[in-house]
Amino acid sequence: MLRIITQVAEAKTELRRICDRTHDDQIVHKEATVREVLQAVKRQGDKALLHYTAEFDGQIFTAEQLRVSGSELDAAYQQVSKELLDAIGLARQQIEAFHRQRIPKSWVQFGEDEIVLGKRYTPVDKAGLYVPGGRASYPSTVLMNAIPAKVAGVPRIVMVTPPGQGKTINAAVLVAAQEAGVQEIYRVGGAQAIAALAYGTETIPKVDVITGPGNIYVTLAKKLVYGAVGIDSLAGPSEVLVIADAAANPVYVAADMLAQAEHDPMAAAILLTTDAGLAKKVQLEVERQLENHPRRLLTEKAIAHYGLIVVVDSLNVAAELSNEFAPEHLELEVQEPWEILEKIRHAGAIFLGNSTPEAVGDYLAGPNHTLPTSGAARYASALGVETFMKHSSLIQYSPTALQKVSNAIQILAQAEGLPSHADSVRLRTEKPTDE
Amino acid sequence: MLRIITQVAEAKTELRRICDRTHDDQIVHKEATVREVLQAVKRQGDKALLHYTAEFDGQIFTAEQLRVSGSELDAAYQQVSKELLDAIGLARQQIEAFHRQRIPKSWVQFGEDEIVLGKRYTPVDKAGLYVPGGRASYPSTVLMNAIPAKVAGVPRIVMVTPPGQGKTINAAVLVAAQEAGVQEIYRVGGAQAIAALAYGTETIPKVDVITGPGNIYVTLAKKLVYGAVGIDSLAGPSEVLVIADAAANPVYVAADMLAQAEHDPMAAAILLTTDAGLAKKVQLEVERQLENHPRRLLTEKAIAHYGLIVVVDSLNVAAELSNEFAPEHLELEVQEPWEILEKIRHAGAIFLGNSTPEAVGDYLAGPNHTLPTSGAARYASALGVETFMKHSSLIQYSPTALQKVSNAIQILAQAEGLPSHADSVRLRTEKPTDE
Repeated sequence: MLRIITQVAEAKTELRRICDRTHDDQIVHKEATVREVLQAVKRQGDKALLHYTAEFDGQIFTAEQLRVSGSELDAAYQQVSKELLDAIGLARQQIEAFHRQRIPKSWVQFGEDEIVLGKRYTPVDKAGLYVPGGRASYPSTVLMNAIPAKVAGVPRIVMVTPPGQGKTINAAVLVAAQEAGVQEIYRVGGAQAIAALAYGTETIPKVDVITGPGNIYVTLAKKLVYGAVGIDSLAGPSEVLVIADAAANPVYVAADMLAQAEHDPMAAAILLTTDAGLAKKVQLEVERQLENHPRRLLTEKAIAHYGLIVVVDSLNVAAELSNEFAPEHLELEVQEPWEILEKIRHAGAIFLGNSTPEAVGDYLAGPNHTLPTSGAARYASALGVETFMKHSSLIQYSPTALQKVSNAIQILAQAEGLPSHADSVRLRTEKPTDE
Repeated sequence: MLRIITQVAEAKTELRRICDRTHDDQIVHKEATVREVLQAVKRQGDKALLHYTAEFDGQIFTAEQLRVSGSELDAAYQQVSKELLDAIGLARQQIEAFHRQRIPKSWVQFGEDEIVLGKRYTPVDKAGLYVPGGRASYPSTVLMNAIPAKVAGVPRIVMVTPPGQGKTINAAVLVAAQEAGVQEIYRVGGAQAIAALAYGTETIPKVDVITGPGNIYVTLAKKLVYGAVGIDSLAGPSEVLVIADAAANPVYVAADMLAQAEHDPMAAAILLTTDAGLAKKVQLEVERQLENHPRRLLTEKAIAHYGLIVVVDSLNVAAELSNEFAPEHLELEVQEPWEILEKIRHAGAIFLGNSTPEAVGDYLAGPNHTLPTSGAARYASALGVETFMKHSSLIQYSPTALQKVSNAIQILAQAEGLPSHADSVRLRTEKPTDE
């Protein structure tokens, strides 16, 4: 049964516990395993990949079979329905349209004395996308990672995903990849796949940035290789926080909370409401919708451990609690969502009003569904085109311009005890003496 | 003596060795120490900070003395020259002007059927700036970290820096902080300072993002706390790569290379030139400028281990070698720098022409001097205003808009085996039946 609490102090404690549910000690234990896998792949390349794929995924094949073949890619289209293909197409189109806006653009500005300053944006050379697999099928993950990379102009995009029974890759995943323009796909998952992308093997190229969600081993591997390669973020289990007033519909709120809980036993679903009546109704409705839920066991577990309803005095209090939690997904199922929005400081994505379930954003509204979790929305943002781009600062000074700042630079360099810094300017600007 | 090589294959091997000079095994040994420090600060707060400050910095004081007092802040102004204060002022003004441009702006767009999509940018609540200290004095580091945070609109900025003899903090650092608008400064450094910022203590607040360079312990600590808090990057030792043709002045090139080498025995200074004559002249000039260098020992060590001149056949080859190295600083001391620029894909900051020594950018041109090192320019960029901001995606659908995509979302949710995702849309859009 979804708990209802009414004390702000208790709510704060509970929200902190839920927010911190992944920061910890279980993680350190697994790190040794992950380090071993990384080292093995770094040293032995493909051989280690095949070894761990046999060990962890129970799939045995050769290095030549790592890459998904052209005929498998073609065949995937025969295995998805026309309806699903159309839905993938609609999602692709809307995600691409959103990500095409505000692509970072290079610029220069011209100042006095022929000074030129600017920023020059370029895509990374190679991107690696991790897509969870095995029993699950996540075509939406493919679209949300591949499309921003494509829009950024990344010349080479490589996808890795763990093989299921018979070394197959889910057909919807293969179709989504092709629809997004990705053809280079390797059947390998887990920490070993991250290692392959970070260090390269005989078959899989070393990439510049790795994105995409995964289990705890994948996340740990991403953290460990960060620095040798860029990563998008350290994704934890998903979470939704709903702020609702009397205008909300308990049936919708309950469905939205379960849509989060059904992801993972560690997923969190929280409701902050000013309406004690709504709280009760949502509590009952969650029970009702769970009755014949195909993923009931897992979903109930998430609700029991990381589900919570808090009845609050005002929407202001709700906004403040939400800011402390910094949710990945925030739904504002209230009469005046744009009014409350002004009070929200931290959230990965914000869904406004009663007709915007999170699922709209998960699949096809356009904005990215890869979002900061576990409080990371305090400092991080959705995956985007900029995840696959970087910029170089541009600086050009003329002799006149350099002359004018020469003294100031030498003083600063001397204050920092760096004589050659001073010399590099002095030698260029001091008047030649007769020798 | 600075080595000159002429074979591209050898150059590639050497450049790879230099680029990888910090990715390593020495690091793993230090991790245990850093983990211990992080845990101690997490558990014991200020007590652990004071303990490690006594142990590592040899400075003993009380928790009340952690924060630099108002009178110390005032006194610092008496200890810096008028000239240095003016130079700091000029640098502050130009850095601020550059960073004020293109601050990410929130936006919304209105689509068909009352769909609203957008991005809302907000600053982090609290930023923590690490400034190296002890014997060194880096007012420029203060400016380059504090100004972007201020421009981003961060309400609370906290600075930490290790104390020197008599628990003092360098006066130029204190003045630079105040000129940049930072008043909250704590005398603590090393991994213990990073822990304090990541977890909070009785005296030092937990922040949302930590920026600033430090030694290997600081960098390791930043890597380990990443996820609980945002970080700017994992900064390694500094590096410059100069591309020069016959138009370059060997005296300037040598000074620029030494300006990099004098930072750190691990710093790298590389010249790629089409002019074998220039190569020889730079080699000699480096020797000459080293003769009376106040930091000769350290600088010579860097030049010996990580200094290199490569004579190449063409500027195209130079550009390609540079792209593989992805230097932190790239100087184009060539006749037509803007022509070569087109061929550059990866570099933290690019200095164009013979009158733009890196020192201009280090101190006051405006762009940030905190740049990706050790090849990270393949995927990362300079510190900036966006380091201290994040965005929330905004999505609002109307009942009509939701109706139109309802079927597609349900199909995608079913393909992913997530029934409540489908329900959250179906329950909102199916026609009510008579019950």
